[in-house]
Amino acid sequence: MSFDDEEYAALPEDRRWARKHRAIVDAAATLFLERGYLGTSMDDLATLARISKQTIYKHFGDKESLFIEMVTTIVDEISDPVHEEVLALQDTGDVEADLRDLARRQLAGVMTPRLLALRRLVIGEAGRFPELGRAFYERGPGRTIASLAATFERLGARGELIADDYATAAAHFNWLVMSAAINRAMLLGPGTSWGDLDQQADDGVRAFLAVYGLPD
Amino acid sequence: MSFDDEEYAALPEDRRWARKHRAIVDAAATLFLERGYLGTSMDDLATLARISKQTIYKHFGDKESLFIEMVTTIVDEISDPVHEEVLALQDTGDVEADLRDLARRQLAGVMTPRLLALRRLVIGEAGRFPELGRAFYERGPGRTIASLAATFERLGARGELIADDYATAAAHFNWLVMSAAINRAMLLGPGTSWGDLDQQADDGVRAFLAVYGLPD
Repeated sequence: MSFDDEEYAALPEDRRWARKHRAIVDAAATLFLERGYLGTSMDDLATLARISKQTIYKHFGDKESLFIEMVTTIVDEISDPVHEEVLALQDTGDVEADLRDLARRQLAGVMTPRLLALRRLVIGEAGRFPELGRAFYERGPGRTIASLAATFERLGARGELIADDYATAAAHFNWLVMSAAINRAMLLGPGTSWGDLDQQADDGVRAFLAVYGLPD
Repeated sequence: MSFDDEEYAALPEDRRWARKHRAIVDAAATLFLERGYLGTSMDDLATLARISKQTIYKHFGDKESLFIEMVTTIVDEISDPVHEEVLALQDTGDVEADLRDLARRQLAGVMTPRLLALRRLVIGEAGRFPELGRAFYERGPGRTIASLAATFERLGARGELIADDYATAAAHFNWLVMSAAINRAMLLGPGTSWGDLDQQADDGVRAFLAVYGLPD
């Protein structure tokens, strides 16, 4: 991407800003994930994004706001399609097959190296900068569990699931599918093997349906 | 604790070393948790523990080995009684009541502020220093899940639980009970409310028994 060619100059204002925004967020992701939050300066960000520091400050405010924008962007890339799939599940004709499909995609999404690195970073900084972790939680697991709860309640009303408390059912689904792999990845670090993810997703769905599915 | 009084001088060699060992590990816990791994120097550790740097190097090797010894000590303090309780469960007369008791203790243990801070620290460093997280994983969740699997297999042989795969059953028990609280605590940071922990433990046990318990 370049900000000084003729093609760029010919773009309308909002398209030009969208490109710059993307360049800044990409640079932020690269530097924050490589050097940590404290190890990244706005000067380095401006240099890497090839955009003036004034422009960055003007549009993002301070470093914390830029970090939160970066978290939001990366987490949404994974979380948006999951969210859509959770909503689509309300009209499913085959709960088991569609839950299994959702679980596999959801687990594959959270186990992408970039999202794992970001999760490690915000957890490591959660003591000093709780807003960073909060942004991750609310856009990621918090949002997914809330939409799962709403979808499960609809499926319950249609007689396809049975639960006293759909928020608990949603948390159980989410963590049955994802916890073993996420916790291994968090503690054992990049490059570790975490086993067959599809198998873990399927085992989680099987357990979930044994609790909250209809009796055979 | 003091290393220059008469009482200390009168102790046998192994008791004297045990006291110094404890002082070094306590100082390591204080400094590593406060300043992070890279932010802690062996000089600061020696000053806080009031023990010469030579003695620390002689007994622990390098900073990474001392960190791993500190992780092992803190994690074992929580993990040892859980491990005992998991083994005792093999002879239980009331699976449901004893699982509930285990789950509540286990969750209360992992949610102590010091263990949460340590977990945040090793996750934050897992990219650069995977050995730190590995020590935490192997002494903590890895060990608990392995002993749960052995106990569940014994209970299965006695006809008190039903599972095709006891390692998966053990992982499901562990994460049904602990994931929601741990993941909130990791991302949302210290001082956040994570709800009624006993209730979350009970909900996890109820779900676990719906999957792996005997039919009513």
